[in-house]
Amino acid sequence: MNIIDTLFGRPLATEEEKAERIGWFKGIPIFGLDALSSAAYGPEAALTLLIPLGMAGSRYVWPITIGIVILLGIVYFSYRQTIAAYPQGGGSYTVATENLGEGAGLLAAAALMIDYVLTAAVGISAGVGALVSAVPSLEPHTLELCLAILILITIINLRGVQDTGGLFLVPTYIFVLCLLGLIAIGLFKTVAAGGHPVPVVALPKLSGATATVSAWLLLRTFSSGCTAMTGVEAVSNGVMAFREPTDKYAKLTLSIIIGILIVMLLGIAFLVPAYGIAATDPGQPGYDSVLSQLLAAVSGRGIFYWLSIGSILVVLSLSANTAFADFPRLARAIAQNGCLPHAFVLRGRRLVFAQGIYSLALLTGILLIIFRGVTDRLIPLYAVGAFLAFTLSQAGMVMHWKRHGGTGSGRSMFVNGLGALATGITTAVVLVAKFIDGAWITVLLIPLLIVMMRSVKRHYGLVGLEINTTKPVDTMGLHEPIVLLPLDRWSLVADKALRYAWTLSKEIHVLHVHFGEETQSLCRKWGEMVEKPALAAGLPLPKLIVLDSPYRFIVKPIVDYAMQLQIAHPDRNITMLIPELVESHWWHYLLHNNRPEAIRALLLFNGNQRITVASIPYHLRA
Amino acid sequence: MNIIDTLFGRPLATEEEKAERIGWFKGIPIFGLDALSSAAYGPEAALTLLIPLGMAGSRYVWPITIGIVILLGIVYFSYRQTIAAYPQGGGSYTVATENLGEGAGLLAAAALMIDYVLTAAVGISAGVGALVSAVPSLEPHTLELCLAILILITIINLRGVQDTGGLFLVPTYIFVLCLLGLIAIGLFKTVAAGGHPVPVVALPKLSGATATVSAWLLLRTFSSGCTAMTGVEAVSNGVMAFREPTDKYAKLTLSIIIGILIVMLLGIAFLVPAYGIAATDPGQPGYDSVLSQLLAAVSGRGIFYWLSIGSILVVLSLSANTAFADFPRLARAIAQNGCLPHAFVLRGRRLVFAQGIYSLALLTGILLIIFRGVTDRLIPLYAVGAFLAFTLSQAGMVMHWKRHGGTGSGRSMFVNGLGALATGITTAVVLVAKFIDGAWITVLLIPLLIVMMRSVKRHYGLVGLEINTTKPVDTMGLHEPIVLLPLDRWSLVADKALRYAWTLSKEIHVLHVHFGEETQSLCRKWGEMVEKPALAAGLPLPKLIVLDSPYRFIVKPIVDYAMQLQIAHPDRNITMLIPELVESHWWHYLLHNNRPEAIRALLLFNGNQRITVASIPYHLRA
Repeated sequence: MNIIDTLFGRPLATEEEKAERIGWFKGIPIFGLDALSSAAYGPEAALTLLIPLGMAGSRYVWPITIGIVILLGIVYFSYRQTIAAYPQGGGSYTVATENLGEGAGLLAAAALMIDYVLTAAVGISAGVGALVSAVPSLEPHTLELCLAILILITIINLRGVQDTGGLFLVPTYIFVLCLLGLIAIGLFKTVAAGGHPVPVVALPKLSGATATVSAWLLLRTFSSGCTAMTGVEAVSNGVMAFREPTDKYAKLTLSIIIGILIVMLLGIAFLVPAYGIAATDPGQPGYDSVLSQLLAAVSGRGIFYWLSIGSILVVLSLSANTAFADFPRLARAIAQNGCLPHAFVLRGRRLVFAQGIYSLALLTGILLIIFRGVTDRLIPLYAVGAFLAFTLSQAGMVMHWKRHGGTGSGRSMFVNGLGALATGITTAVVLVAKFIDGAWITVLLIPLLIVMMRSVKRHYGLVGLEINTTKPVDTMGLHEPIVLLPLDRWSLVADKALRYAWTLSKEIHVLHVHFGEETQSLCRKWGEMVEKPALAAGLPLPKLIVLDSPYRFIVKPIVDYAMQLQIAHPDRNITMLIPELVESHWWHYLLHNNRPEAIRALLLFNGNQRITVASIPYHLRA
Repeated sequence: MNIIDTLFGRPLATEEEKAERIGWFKGIPIFGLDALSSAAYGPEAALTLLIPLGMAGSRYVWPITIGIVILLGIVYFSYRQTIAAYPQGGGSYTVATENLGEGAGLLAAAALMIDYVLTAAVGISAGVGALVSAVPSLEPHTLELCLAILILITIINLRGVQDTGGLFLVPTYIFVLCLLGLIAIGLFKTVAAGGHPVPVVALPKLSGATATVSAWLLLRTFSSGCTAMTGVEAVSNGVMAFREPTDKYAKLTLSIIIGILIVMLLGIAFLVPAYGIAATDPGQPGYDSVLSQLLAAVSGRGIFYWLSIGSILVVLSLSANTAFADFPRLARAIAQNGCLPHAFVLRGRRLVFAQGIYSLALLTGILLIIFRGVTDRLIPLYAVGAFLAFTLSQAGMVMHWKRHGGTGSGRSMFVNGLGALATGITTAVVLVAKFIDGAWITVLLIPLLIVMMRSVKRHYGLVGLEINTTKPVDTMGLHEPIVLLPLDRWSLVADKALRYAWTLSKEIHVLHVHFGEETQSLCRKWGEMVEKPALAAGLPLPKLIVLDSPYRFIVKPIVDYAMQLQIAHPDRNITMLIPELVESHWWHYLLHNNRPEAIRALLLFNGNQRITVASIPYHLRA
């Protein structure tokens, strides 16, 4: 077990849970990476759509960013309130369920689950994609690199919240400092140059305009830019991970994350037109990302450039971690309501919800393998889920304030109502703008997931109805079981099993399937080996029953006998004793038949309530 | 079960075994395909090596063929005698084991097993290779075609000997008739033309000589031509498949197969130089196989040509079937001596040795997948095993006659001795000639297989020593077991398990792992639900034991408790009852935990002889 301890850390006791909780400093790397890394791809995604407008495109950067920042602000205020109202951890799922009903809750849950899997897959493959474009010789190993990072993130998360936060601290804060530094230097140079700074490194030539602006283009640009907002809900799902007072620390963390993100978005939106930067086509040679151009223009290609680029790569990969922080907590909340398997509720050896981590890793791995590590085409599927969850969460909060009232509830209701309206419209815009590109897949998957979760809940309900009872134990009609014991020949294994049978019942049927010489040998020895000593000891005589098997089946006649017996004795329990050789090496099992397992499985699945199967191990020393 | 009946046929009763036996007519397709199809590649393999000699090469065809035919005759007489001496089915393995000892037997067994797997893989891929060169658009599907044929042959063989023989009758006899017809027409035309017939279709231009003859070249040519002899031992392994008198039918079948093969080899050897045919380079454009050239030269490219070519393709693929007929019988003979798992001894539902068929199919499939269906490079590995087995078989027969004596034994001993010498020399030649090309792999694999078979035998021996007994059952010290019953909460499942426990023992420990509220609820209800009714009915009170679990493990504390109990009570059996929900659909198992299986596995493997695990199924109607 030592290797497990090394890899995952020693088990943590339940009472150590408090010590595992975190403050804002570790909260930012754990819950903020998805939101913060958005600064690296949100503006880029928007600007890419503006390429056809040529130089004229830069004119729209500022208004679109302002729109996004306002939306972000509304969503931020709304989640602050959610955290205050649901200090037990209330993501969109909880808020929607409690205020809008189970249907709305499951809708939010399905949307978020899809979104988290996409976050993990897209984050990892974006990071690896950037690495591969820097070191092209790694290209053939794209999938392997993605899976290696996935496994690494999985292991780190299984080590618990403290370790995860500790490990991701350094790259996160380097990234934040680099980007804030870039903005500060850029602003300074721009002001110093009277609004028209000269790039340190020459920028790529802009291609001329090939299209004119249209409302549809701006709408698509806006909805692409909105991907910068994914990850904002993360903190609200994980309130319970913070130390007491949980809501205070959670709110503080959320405020810092959103604050930094807004500064970054506004800073980039200011510097990009000032330096005359435009996106380059990612499919074409000479591609250079917007942030890379901006860094080069502001500071040249020195140490600061490479440090920043490096931290962007790392943070992009690690943005997957937000999914690992939230998905298990979301799954746990859903499982607590009986809509996902109970296993999601249990804390693993390091107090994390291990089952959720495994599931997310598995789904992400499948996605990465299907797309061979290149998940660009998944990005359109991405923002719909997040915005649907935003909308439901805000609408839920409106109902919440309406129901609970209290001081300031009118104002809160207004903010949430505004948020619901804004995010609802954005959801519709994103959905329409990206429907053909792939958002339709999300639209198809969500109802499927809801049906699945509902049927899980129904199943648990039916099982509960069947096995729950408030009646005391029934003490009537207790009979010894009839014991069945399949034997091929007389051996110490048989001796042990028969001795055990005598301790259980006076009625023992030894079942032997006819098999040539072996049968004659067993019948010949039976009197000497069993009947004589049994009579001498006053033990009940076991019945030796030879079963015919014209087709040489061994398992079937034994199972059939038990089935017939259960019909013939409707008031008796039947216990099949199965002697099993226990080998010291697994490969020795290839040398023995698997009939014990076959008999056991057939009787358990096809038998009825009164057939019990007991394995009698015989441990070989060999 | 209906689909299984359709695919594999209804089960055959043991007493139908006689009706499954075959005569020479079906014996030839079953045991002769490997030997007969040799005519299609043996001469080709030899002639290919003579290409560098140009026209001069044809001069050596006749002496080399004569040499091969003489060797074939010796081997034939030897196997006739083997069949007579071992009517129970005596392949090289049996003969070598009985006369030269287990070591020699296992050497023959290992050599033959490797050879059969190669026969199956090379046969199938040769057939598919020929098909693909006729229809090049199939080339990307080579592996799939190979595997499809493998599955087909496997299913046909699982249907039993009669069905296999019946299905392969038509292509086999078309092939034989076509080749004999070719030789007859060719002979007639050659004689009519005074020894210099004119080809109907012009032959490809011969390239000039690029090398001169050497002893080494002739030796390699001879050993390549010897691949025509593989498959000759097939009948001797399968004597038991023939109807009574088995040895008569087996000998007759062998005689017909060898007779036809010799006629084919001599006929081809006569016609090839008469028509001035030489091999073409298989790697080069314009490649045309020797038989195809000969067919075209003798009869033109008409119906007869295409029928013959078609039958050659089919027979090449089906030559794999000889391996399927023999490998399972060989494995059975080895398993009967305890050197392979017992399962190889059992006849399956269609009376064939199904385990052997599965194993061969699996190994062949792996080989095909590794080589992606192109097994040309395996051909050098091929003949070594067959000739090693020939040699051991002949040497064994020499010892056999020496030991048994009788009329004519002197003559028989001489024939077998000559055979042993001739095949022994050929083995050495083949080994040296092909060592670098791949025969070294066979040389490495054989000892590995021998070590494996020996360790299987040793394991069975050790197990036998441990569990065999001639002592009657021990009737002393029989005590009721201590019954352990893990429960999470009170339910009908718990009710059922507890009722069962009372029928087994007066000492019941109910084990409950501490789990928050559930624990309080169970403890609260315990008196009402269990203790009161038990007291009223005069039943022993089960002890409720709450196990602490600081690390939230559920399985470990339960298993630990059982382990400690077995140490504390060295004279008692301990029975762990494990209630298990039985679901009606497999996917429902995802909704429940797998703790029952974990507890069962841990106790069976880590427990001792006195811990028994019983599963108490609770069948859900849902």
